[in-house]
Amino acid sequence: MIIIMNGKTNDADVEKVIQKLHEMGHKVHISRGERRIVLGVIGDVENLASVPFYAYNGVEEIIRIIKPYKLASREFKDFNTIIKVKDITIGGKEVIVMAGPCVVENEKQIFETAQQVKASGAKILRGGAFKPRTSPYSFQGLGEEGLKLLAQAGKETGLAVVTEVMSVNQIDLVAEYTDIFQVGARNMQNFVLLKELGKTKKPILLKRGMAVTIEELLLSAEYILTQGNYEVILCERGIRTFENYTRNTLDLSAIPALKRLSHLPVIVDPSHATGRWRLVSPMAKAAIAAGTDGLLIEVHTDPKSSLSDGAQTLKLDTFTQLIKELRPIIQAVGREFNIPVEGELDRIKN
Amino acid sequence: MIIIMNGKTNDADVEKVIQKLHEMGHKVHISRGERRIVLGVIGDVENLASVPFYAYNGVEEIIRIIKPYKLASREFKDFNTIIKVKDITIGGKEVIVMAGPCVVENEKQIFETAQQVKASGAKILRGGAFKPRTSPYSFQGLGEEGLKLLAQAGKETGLAVVTEVMSVNQIDLVAEYTDIFQVGARNMQNFVLLKELGKTKKPILLKRGMAVTIEELLLSAEYILTQGNYEVILCERGIRTFENYTRNTLDLSAIPALKRLSHLPVIVDPSHATGRWRLVSPMAKAAIAAGTDGLLIEVHTDPKSSLSDGAQTLKLDTFTQLIKELRPIIQAVGREFNIPVEGELDRIKN
Amino acid sequence: MIIIMNGKTNDADVEKVIQKLHEMGHKVHISRGERRIVLGVIGDVENLASVPFYAYNGVEEIIRIIKPYKLASREFKDFNTIIKVKDITIGGKEVIVMAGPCVVENEKQIFETAQQVKASGAKILRGGAFKPRTSPYSFQGLGEEGLKLLAQAGKETGLAVVTEVMSVNQIDLVAEYTDIFQVGARNMQNFVLLKELGKTKKPILLKRGMAVTIEELLLSAEYILTQGNYEVILCERGIRTFENYTRNTLDLSAIPALKRLSHLPVIVDPSHATGRWRLVSPMAKAAIAAGTDGLLIEVHTDPKSSLSDGAQTLKLDTFTQLIKELRPIIQAVGREFNIPVEGELDRIKN
Amino acid sequence: MIIIMNGKTNDADVEKVIQKLHEMGHKVHISRGERRIVLGVIGDVENLASVPFYAYNGVEEIIRIIKPYKLASREFKDFNTIIKVKDITIGGKEVIVMAGPCVVENEKQIFETAQQVKASGAKILRGGAFKPRTSPYSFQGLGEEGLKLLAQAGKETGLAVVTEVMSVNQIDLVAEYTDIFQVGARNMQNFVLLKELGKTKKPILLKRGMAVTIEELLLSAEYILTQGNYEVILCERGIRTFENYTRNTLDLSAIPALKRLSHLPVIVDPSHATGRWRLVSPMAKAAIAAGTDGLLIEVHTDPKSSLSDGAQTLKLDTFTQLIKELRPIIQAVGREFNIPVEGELDRIKN
Repeated sequence: MIIIMNGKTNDADVEKVIQKLHEMGHKVHISRGERRIVLGVIGDVENLASVPFYAYNGVEEIIRIIKPYKLASREFKDFNTIIKVKDITIGGKEVIVMAGPCVVENEKQIFETAQQVKASGAKILRGGAFKPRTSPYSFQGLGEEGLKLLAQAGKETGLAVVTEVMSVNQIDLVAEYTDIFQVGARNMQNFVLLKELGKTKKPILLKRGMAVTIEELLLSAEYILTQGNYEVILCERGIRTFENYTRNTLDLSAIPALKRLSHLPVIVDPSHATGRWRLVSPMAKAAIAAGTDGLLIEVHTDPKSSLSDGAQTLKLDTFTQLIKELRPIIQAVGREFNIPVEGELDRIKN
Repeated sequence: MIIIMNGKTNDADVEKVIQKLHEMGHKVHISRGERRIVLGVIGDVENLASVPFYAYNGVEEIIRIIKPYKLASREFKDFNTIIKVKDITIGGKEVIVMAGPCVVENEKQIFETAQQVKASGAKILRGGAFKPRTSPYSFQGLGEEGLKLLAQAGKETGLAVVTEVMSVNQIDLVAEYTDIFQVGARNMQNFVLLKELGKTKKPILLKRGMAVTIEELLLSAEYILTQGNYEVILCERGIRTFENYTRNTLDLSAIPALKRLSHLPVIVDPSHATGRWRLVSPMAKAAIAAGTDGLLIEVHTDPKSSLSDGAQTLKLDTFTQLIKELRPIIQAVGREFNIPVEGELDRIKN
Repeated sequence: MIIIMNGKTNDADVEKVIQKLHEMGHKVHISRGERRIVLGVIGDVENLASVPFYAYNGVEEIIRIIKPYKLASREFKDFNTIIKVKDITIGGKEVIVMAGPCVVENEKQIFETAQQVKASGAKILRGGAFKPRTSPYSFQGLGEEGLKLLAQAGKETGLAVVTEVMSVNQIDLVAEYTDIFQVGARNMQNFVLLKELGKTKKPILLKRGMAVTIEELLLSAEYILTQGNYEVILCERGIRTFENYTRNTLDLSAIPALKRLSHLPVIVDPSHATGRWRLVSPMAKAAIAAGTDGLLIEVHTDPKSSLSDGAQTLKLDTFTQLIKELRPIIQAVGREFNIPVEGELDRIKN
Repeated sequence: MIIIMNGKTNDADVEKVIQKLHEMGHKVHISRGERRIVLGVIGDVENLASVPFYAYNGVEEIIRIIKPYKLASREFKDFNTIIKVKDITIGGKEVIVMAGPCVVENEKQIFETAQQVKASGAKILRGGAFKPRTSPYSFQGLGEEGLKLLAQAGKETGLAVVTEVMSVNQIDLVAEYTDIFQVGARNMQNFVLLKELGKTKKPILLKRGMAVTIEELLLSAEYILTQGNYEVILCERGIRTFENYTRNTLDLSAIPALKRLSHLPVIVDPSHATGRWRLVSPMAKAAIAAGTDGLLIEVHTDPKSSLSDGAQTLKLDTFTQLIKELRPIIQAVGREFNIPVEGELDRIKN
């Protein structure tokens, strides 16, 4: 940590800061310039995190030179975390596609979607049962009924399932049905929820909040890791900017940035990011090229009758076409994508 | 609601949209131009909220012309909501100051602060017991012990108290001690929490999220109101922008905007907004001039030893000085500020 | 300047950076930690500005501890710059109001506006002759004809005038007619224009760009100052954010921030910031309370027939009312506002 | 255009708006609801652009349903614009790489870079002679000397050249040396410059401003097109957001968005967007996958001695490696990339 003080600070005031650092058990390097005095503290400065140095006279800036997260950092673990869900590996060589409707609406919808996304090569079925909606007047999901349908559709097709958990009091219920917990963008800094999920034994798909930096996303992951659950999948889903043609601005540079800073798998949700189905395919392709470990895509048998987010949802045939177009790009960047063999598909359908 | 379609859309596709509108019970006005076809639906279109018109061929834009919130709107209620807490009225002619430390740390700290902010004219004591901290390694608050100390300090000084509730499973506990529930910026779209708070009978201080529009803030208030709790205090506390000199960018235009759109009281937190104590006083003054109903200010007996957010915290004498400087501005804008009479202060101290 | 290197960097690579610093004439303090190596260079590091240290192996971060502007800084000059235009002083105890239409449209409009804003207490008349419009199809101003009308209206009423200059090839022409050059938000980083204006002898009103930090605004001022023109008035006019209720988000914390970092006068334009006339008055009041040296306000005799920005323009009587309401706030913050004596007003009108 | 008025507006006030629309030659469709009155004007409403309807009583919102740009729109021209520079075509099937140093520094630097980027497959050489730098103390470029060196390097290698023009008074000079004019992000709304460039006969590479929407970028292109120059290349180079790990946030969704809205070619600059050389390659790949027509990449023979932007500059061998990795992705998305045949390369070197 570096503390920068005004060059005109009197000695007594500089001494107070130094003394505090000594009290906390640290050695201090002092460099005096005409305009600035710089105090450097090297080493483990965790115990200084809550010392409000800004409140000391003369202090102009505090610079932390060690990243504030640990367990999530590549310095802590320099090989990639690979997460196993059933027979699927996330974070390995294979690119994993998670697909399904925004909301589970009824049996027909979720079963048809499950079968067809499976046939196209998706490995994980997504679908919301508890939906965080900006307006209290929007459809909020089927609740437990939705969870049941999702789990059944997963079971029948052999797909793993992922669904959102919105609150600590839903964890036990959701855990009965899901393979992966999803934490939505609006709950990314719901620290009570993160801590409790850290005590479970299922992987957590953690979506980046709308106004949250890459560092803060990793700190939220750290909340989960510190509780003993090391299976966190980071998800870039667009950040809020002034641009209003798209619903959010998809920050694809977060992929290589997160890969460099952390060992955790990174996936991308181009559906919520763009809010326009026509942009989903090009952004899915771009995400692959940028190195994503997976994609989370909204697909619906009939977007027109969808009860949520129809504008950004792909029809099944558009989704199938997208997967076809993704495959050469996946190969071009040296990754893999496994689709079910023909027979397996027939088995599913019958 | 207005649906704008491409002028080249074929009749059958236009007809599909019209038919859907008819099905949902609406009359449609059609205006055909060369480049655009415009369908207008006037009246109560709530049941259209979840119809994904964007998924229909030819649809280019959906424009909602009625605001999506109701109970929070000035059209629903055209006189100001005044909230009573003990003998304090929020949203009336008087400007209410809420002050105290970011975190309750110990008895001495909270009692001294309470007495002195009371003496300067604060009506409500703030203090965190459960703290949402970006890093899991930062001090997270004293929990119930903090709630007890806060409540005792409130009782002894006659101040009402406000403290944050972070999760549904904390509501009952926090309710035992607080007069007002605070919902923090990071939980502003924690809809499960909002709904449960809507079932309580205590006022809710709802902080604007970092990347949340004025409309979305009102929609979150609507979540509480629809559950039957009409006592919501809106709080502007800065939004996240590219500017990094300040911690956030305080959006004071939200005050007159919210006042125009809604009947709910509006207060401002200049401490979290700026993140720098030197900017707290000018921004507090500006908030008064812009029409705020109250201020939420961080004050500490000794910011240097504060366990949280020391950089933005006022010392007690700076706070006292600020209140002195605020009073002529409060008068200049035709508002009131009542300070305790001398005797009362002595009584508190003894 | 501080250079932070990865703790695992080999000695040869660390040595290369140190050698480069020595070459450039600097002493280096080295602190080695397990995870980070920190190199500190104290003193005048200007000659390092263009050395790309990031290109050296092992370098993780460069931190500049001296602000990159000089002449604009309060460290360079610790008393306020006061700018004289005719008999007006900007940056002194008096709050200066600049008012007028967005665009000069015709003789009647500009003369009537000039007389009435003068009567209400404005000291400077604003009006555009060359207008930067987002669309090429919008009205672009009257050009020299507009300049002439503005100058005549100023002369007749005794008001100083301010108008925008959009390009180096307009400087000589605009200089013939204006008392103050205005540089618009879109040209704030038009460095060729800034340099040429730095060679003139007229004050420059420099508007903050839409996506420009406080530091970058001061660097643009520095471009003018380094050419010998020390009369720069900084103008906060809103920054671009995700919020769309207002045209921009007025960053009033920029006032105390700029006052602390710089000695230059600071004014505020609440009209362009909000884009809604109903918000202009509360934001003008807030700006006064936050310590602005002046206001720039759009006023029109008949906003309905305005050729530009009618949505945010005050009618003359609303403007007069605003000034009345501002005066007690101006007094409350210890500033002054001088209005013309009655007789003078009659003289103007006759 | 649609004008939305409050449902409580009295008839006389509604009539005033209707009358104004009639005066301007338009038919009006009126839909009256209880809470809103909607006036629809279909057809060519250009002459309404400068009517300030917001200044009329009762008007709540104005919605334009026709895009404000014309010549740049896909509705105006539904096949892609292909721009020819020497024997290069931009906007066709081939992906074009433009590469070179941020600033032309000396003969050796620019000639070596030119030869090697040519060898790797770049078709256009970039290099700045006039540099817009945030600080007046940073190196501002070699001026005409830089232009000469750039043109000579282009001539010798057969590469076309692109360089920035910062002001109208530089147009003639720059035109002598360059094949393509570049307009930088900070000048994207320098409308005087755009108009003058619209009168030249050379292609314009127009970079998106830091806080500028996709629509505003197209309106700036429209400034050039309306003057008769139809050869505009749009360039996404990152927008400013709260994220600070990267210099800007690269908005790759702008590629398919611009392709859908406009017929103009779109290229991407991953160097300025990310500000970190390690992110340049993944973002270049992602841009290809998203459908870019070309890339603009900073390359330097020795980034460590670069006089500008060394942090984001690729070394020549990293650049060569990138091009190798790009090629399979270019093929995967059905585009082409032509590299010089062996012999040609030798000819260049000798």
